[in-house]
Amino acid sequence: MQKEDAMHEQDARFLTDFHEVATIGATPAGGVERQAATDADRQTRDWFAKWASAEGLETRVDAIGNMFACATLVPDAPYIFVGSHLDSQPRGGRFDGAYGVIAALHTVSRLVQAAKKNEFTPTFNVAAVNWFNEEGGRFAPSIMGSSVYAGFFGLDEMHEVTDLEGHSVRGELDRIGYLGNDAPPEAAGYAEVHIEQGRILEREGIDIGVVTGSWYTQKLDIEVIGEQSHTGATAMADRHDALVAASKVVVAVHDVTAEFPAEAVKAARDKIIARAAEIEREHGVTCNIRDFDIRGKHFFTEEGIALSERVLDEQGFSHRQVYTMAGHDSVAMNLRVPSVMMFVPSVDGVSHCEREFTTDKDLVNGVHALTGVVTRMLQGDLADGRRWQAASVQPSMLAQQ
Amino acid sequence: MQKEDAMHEQDARFLTDFHEVATIGATPAGGVERQAATDADRQTRDWFAKWASAEGLETRVDAIGNMFACATLVPDAPYIFVGSHLDSQPRGGRFDGAYGVIAALHTVSRLVQAAKKNEFTPTFNVAAVNWFNEEGGRFAPSIMGSSVYAGFFGLDEMHEVTDLEGHSVRGELDRIGYLGNDAPPEAAGYAEVHIEQGRILEREGIDIGVVTGSWYTQKLDIEVIGEQSHTGATAMADRHDALVAASKVVVAVHDVTAEFPAEAVKAARDKIIARAAEIEREHGVTCNIRDFDIRGKHFFTEEGIALSERVLDEQGFSHRQVYTMAGHDSVAMNLRVPSVMMFVPSVDGVSHCEREFTTDKDLVNGVHALTGVVTRMLQGDLADGRRWQAASVQPSMLAQQ
Repeated sequence: MQKEDAMHEQDARFLTDFHEVATIGATPAGGVERQAATDADRQTRDWFAKWASAEGLETRVDAIGNMFACATLVPDAPYIFVGSHLDSQPRGGRFDGAYGVIAALHTVSRLVQAAKKNEFTPTFNVAAVNWFNEEGGRFAPSIMGSSVYAGFFGLDEMHEVTDLEGHSVRGELDRIGYLGNDAPPEAAGYAEVHIEQGRILEREGIDIGVVTGSWYTQKLDIEVIGEQSHTGATAMADRHDALVAASKVVVAVHDVTAEFPAEAVKAARDKIIARAAEIEREHGVTCNIRDFDIRGKHFFTEEGIALSERVLDEQGFSHRQVYTMAGHDSVAMNLRVPSVMMFVPSVDGVSHCEREFTTDKDLVNGVHALTGVVTRMLQGDLADGRRWQAASVQPSMLAQQ
Repeated sequence: MQKEDAMHEQDARFLTDFHEVATIGATPAGGVERQAATDADRQTRDWFAKWASAEGLETRVDAIGNMFACATLVPDAPYIFVGSHLDSQPRGGRFDGAYGVIAALHTVSRLVQAAKKNEFTPTFNVAAVNWFNEEGGRFAPSIMGSSVYAGFFGLDEMHEVTDLEGHSVRGELDRIGYLGNDAPPEAAGYAEVHIEQGRILEREGIDIGVVTGSWYTQKLDIEVIGEQSHTGATAMADRHDALVAASKVVVAVHDVTAEFPAEAVKAARDKIIARAAEIEREHGVTCNIRDFDIRGKHFFTEEGIALSERVLDEQGFSHRQVYTMAGHDSVAMNLRVPSVMMFVPSVDGVSHCEREFTTDKDLVNGVHALTGVVTRMLQGDLADGRRWQAASVQPSMLAQQ
C-alpha cells in the first residue's frame, strides 16, 4: 500500500511537470509555439536543466544542442538513452515531443531511486535526452539533433542550415546559450514514448502501441521562378506567373496521392517531377527541383518489440503493434543502437495542431510502460548495443540529401 | 536659338532629377523598392519638398499624405493639378509613377517661368502633386490618396487600413513625418503623364498615347481557412488542407480568364465564386469571400482628348488613342474634374518589375507634351472645372467596397 501511494505521488508529480512545461510558449487555443532555437525553446531547455540539476543528474549539451541528463550508475559503462524533443511545430500541440522528454526525465528519476534501493542491478547507465530540432519546421531537415548524434547528418552542414529569415542553426543555438561543447555520452540503446499520430489505439481502445517500423520518406524542394509583372495590365499570354505555376505544383502533389498506393513513393515522386516540367512549359517559368530528406523504410528490432510486449503484459496494459508514418528521433537512433518506441492514444489522432490531446491517464500509462521497458534495458535485456551497431548499420539505409 | 538652348538645358535638368530619384530605394537589378509610407518613400518625399522649396513653390501635405507643390499665379483661383505618385510596388520599376511626378514638377517650373515672362495669361493656378499610395501593394486599396482627395474613399477608413504586419496607414504616415494637416488646394483640372503598361506605342513606333478610358476593375478578397495537421501522418481523407484549396482558387482565377472575353468581368467573378464553393466542399475548408475594390469603366472627356491631340499635332509628335488596363490617379481625379492622361512608350510593355524601361528621349517628349497640354488648361481650354464636376460625377460610377 505504501508503494502504491508513492506511485500515485510520482504520477502526480509527472503530470504537474507535464502541465507546467505546456505553459511555456502556450498559445490561446491550447497549443504551444516553441520552434527550435527560439526564446520559447530556450525556456523549456532551462526548465530541463534546472529539473535535472535538482534531481542530481549531470546535464551535458553537445554541439548541435542535444541535452543529456545523465545518471551514472555503473562507472565507465555506456548509457541507455530515453528521450524525445521539446521543440514544437509552429502553433503545434503540447504533447508531441514534450510528453516523451518529461516521461524520460521521470523514468530516469524513478530508475535512479530503484537502483539505490537495489531493486535491480544495472549493467548500463541511463540518460534522459532532449534532442534538438526534431520538428524541422524552422530548420530543415527534421530529426536534426538525433541524426547528427547518430552520424547521418554532418555537424558543420547542419550548423549552416538557415531559417527563412537567414538565421543559422549555429547562430541561433549560440544566441539562446545552447551551442554546447560537451562530448555526448555513448549510447547502448534508446527508448522513446510518444503520442500516436493516428487513430488506431483510440478506435480500438488499446492502452499502448508498440511501434514496429517507419515509412519511407521522400521530400522534394521545388523552387518556381517566374517574372514579376503588372497584375492588371499584363496580357495573359505575356505572363510568367510563379504563383499560378506553384499552385499547380501544390495541386499536383495533392492529386498524385490518389493515383498511387500509399507505399509507391518513388513512382509518385517521378510523376510530380514530370508534372512540374509540364507546368514549366505551360507558364514560362523555371522549376528547380531537388530531392530532399529521403529516408528509407526501417524496422525496429524483433527483440525490442518482444521486450516491450513482455513488459506490457506484466504491467497489465493492452497493446498492439503499430507502424509510424511520422518521423521520430527513435528512427534515427534505431540505425545506431537497439531502439524501442511506444505510443499512447491521441484523441482524434491529430498532431501538429493546437487541439492535440491525450488524457492524463494515458500519459501516466506511457510513463509506467517506458519505465518498465527501460528497467529491463538497463539490465542488458536487449543485445549489447555496440555489437548490434556494428552488425546493422548500413549507410545507405538513410540517404543524405 | 537661345530658346532652343534653354530647352535643352531644361531637359537635361529633368533627366538629372529623374535619374537621381531612381537611386532612392534602388535595387541591384535596376528597380526601386519604395512602398507607401516606408523609409524610402519618405526619402522621395523629402526630395520633392526640397525641390519645390528651391523653386519657390509652396508645399502642402494633407491628412492622407498627398503632397502639393503649389504655384499661385492667380490669387484665389483654383488649381490645375499635374501629378502621379512616388511610391512603388515591391521590387518595382523606376519609371512607374516617379516619372509623372518629376515631369509634373518640371512642368510647373516651366509654366511659372513662362507666366512670369508673360508668354501666356493664366486663368488658374498650378500645382505638382505626389499622390499617396497609388500602388496599394502594402496598403490596399490602391489609388488611395487621389481617391480620398476626390471623395470616393473615406479618410478615417483609409487611416485604419493596415499592412500584413498590422501597421496602419495613419501610424506609418505619422512615423515618416507625412501625416499632414494642410487643407489641400482646390482642383479645377488634372493632367498626368505615365509610361504605357502595354506594348502598343512601342510596336507602332508612336511618340505619345492619349488615354481615352479605363477598364472595369473587380477584385475579390478570398480567405481560405483549413486546419493544421501533421504533413505525413494525417490520412488524406482527414485533411482540411488550406494550401491545396487556396492553390485551386489561384488556378481557378487563372483559368477563368480563358473562358470569358476580356470585358466579361462580372461573369468571371461569379464563376470564381462558384468554383470556390466547390473547393470548399472538396477540401473541407471555409472560403470567406468579399468583393473588393470594384471600379467602373470610365472615359476621359472628349474635350480633353481633343485638346491633347491638338497640342501634340502642334508639337509635331505622333500619337494615337489608347486604353488603360491599369488603374491611375487620373482615373479617380477624372470623376471629379476634367482630366487628361498621356502615355509614353515602355520597352516590352512591362511594368511593376525591375526591368521596366523607357528611353530618355521618350521621357523628355512626355514632359514637352504635358507642358503643352497644361499650358492650355491653365488658360481655361477645358470647360470650367467646377461646372463640369457638377454635371458629370455620379457616385455609382465608382462603387465603394
